[in-house]
Amino acid sequence: MNRYAFRIEYHGADYAGWQRQDGQISVQEVFERALSCLEPIGIAGTVAAGRTDSGVHARGQVAHCNLSSHWEPLRLREALNAHLRAERVRVLDVACVGDDFSARHSAVERVYVYRILSRRPPPAIEDGLVWHVRHDLNVDSMRRGAKHLVGRHDFTTFRSVHCQAKSPVRTLDSLVVELQPRTHGAEILITARARSFLHRQIRSLVGSLERVGAGLIEPHAIAEMLAARDRSACGPVAPARGLYLAAIKYRPDPFQANG
Amino acid sequence: MNRYAFRIEYHGADYAGWQRQDGQISVQEVFERALSCLEPIGIAGTVAAGRTDSGVHARGQVAHCNLSSHWEPLRLREALNAHLRAERVRVLDVACVGDDFSARHSAVERVYVYRILSRRPPPAIEDGLVWHVRHDLNVDSMRRGAKHLVGRHDFTTFRSVHCQAKSPVRTLDSLVVELQPRTHGAEILITARARSFLHRQIRSLVGSLERVGAGLIEPHAIAEMLAARDRSACGPVAPARGLYLAAIKYRPDPFQANG
Repeated sequence: MNRYAFRIEYHGADYAGWQRQDGQISVQEVFERALSCLEPIGIAGTVAAGRTDSGVHARGQVAHCNLSSHWEPLRLREALNAHLRAERVRVLDVACVGDDFSARHSAVERVYVYRILSRRPPPAIEDGLVWHVRHDLNVDSMRRGAKHLVGRHDFTTFRSVHCQAKSPVRTLDSLVVELQPRTHGAEILITARARSFLHRQIRSLVGSLERVGAGLIEPHAIAEMLAARDRSACGPVAPARGLYLAAIKYRPDPFQANG
Repeated sequence: MNRYAFRIEYHGADYAGWQRQDGQISVQEVFERALSCLEPIGIAGTVAAGRTDSGVHARGQVAHCNLSSHWEPLRLREALNAHLRAERVRVLDVACVGDDFSARHSAVERVYVYRILSRRPPPAIEDGLVWHVRHDLNVDSMRRGAKHLVGRHDFTTFRSVHCQAKSPVRTLDSLVVELQPRTHGAEILITARARSFLHRQIRSLVGSLERVGAGLIEPHAIAEMLAARDRSACGPVAPARGLYLAAIKYRPDPFQANG
């Protein structure tokens, strides 16, 4: 068998997340359907680095699987994209990898970006691609709140009650809040980096930071919410449509060799 | 009568351009329909700064019109956006202006941005929002080509044969080519600034600069194309979906006073 890694982009709106689910169209199902057009004997299940939720977008999801035939990476990418033409899923890169490579377990860093559009009128162009909030956000306050979250913490407050991870402890390497002024209002970009995240962790953090930016809670309240280790202390969870799985990092980078 | 200026955002894909046209839905028609919900006696025609073509997007189109009643600008904006809810058109700002203000004739600068996504796989997320080219583009060559176009020139080569402007002479204040690396491939942003543009001028310039970036023509060939003053010397015209009317500048800025 030959193992391949795939870097995948998708528009989350059409799919019930990455993971296969009964009765709903997932990215995994669509991607495996394209693979099975190339491997008539049927493929073993693909493994992805991030199980994005329903509606979450990806600019750099990574998945791997084994194929019985040998493929030149660029030809495999073109063949898959031909079969994916009617979908909002694209294969950006393909790499041959060793049998010890796992898209999920070999990942050394996961990068997510959350986009908030802060202005009174709803978006005409970025509808479905941002979280639209109708009020101003104080980015300095959001940054002060975000500082309390960086580092190694018990993130019980900021994970879904359905999270299956054994431990609620994670190390958040960075959480950067950027302001991009627009013709009217502003776009706020929140970039989170960690080796791994808990279920709904970023949308939970962003939802609480938005409350800070809106002036409804103080930045230091974030530290208290974190210390409470209690899901009910969390603010509202930010919607899926603003979240992007931006990149997955590996050492060495399996896609480096390709053009 | 009271005159109002409106800053408007729209997604071009749904509309046959700004200008009213028989048998097709235009942004102007949709916007005037919303205005006529507020002014039952019927409104005089709106005048816009830029007559964007079918499929072209706007982040900062400006239009003006006269209304018989007096409106508080923020309330007028909210009322219009309520009537525009089902459309991909939004009013970003409203300002009361004097009778001598014309969205079209008072404009001192028009800013357009053209987005090219350069990479082999088609876009999953930005479909309809960028011009997708499947090859690499040499941005340095594009910049060298763009330099020939800045300044006061006869742009006959780079305007539509249907252009109704009396003179083909325009002053292009700047034409900046920027490179934004992406996870895979790159996005190229081309920003054009001028007091006014000819019909299809930017899409014509961008189409020829793309040929330069692809290495099919030399940067100095742009100077020869310009000097030819012959429409048949122009390269292919870039598609509408990559073009954004970004901003219209006035002195003083009628929207400055609003929050």
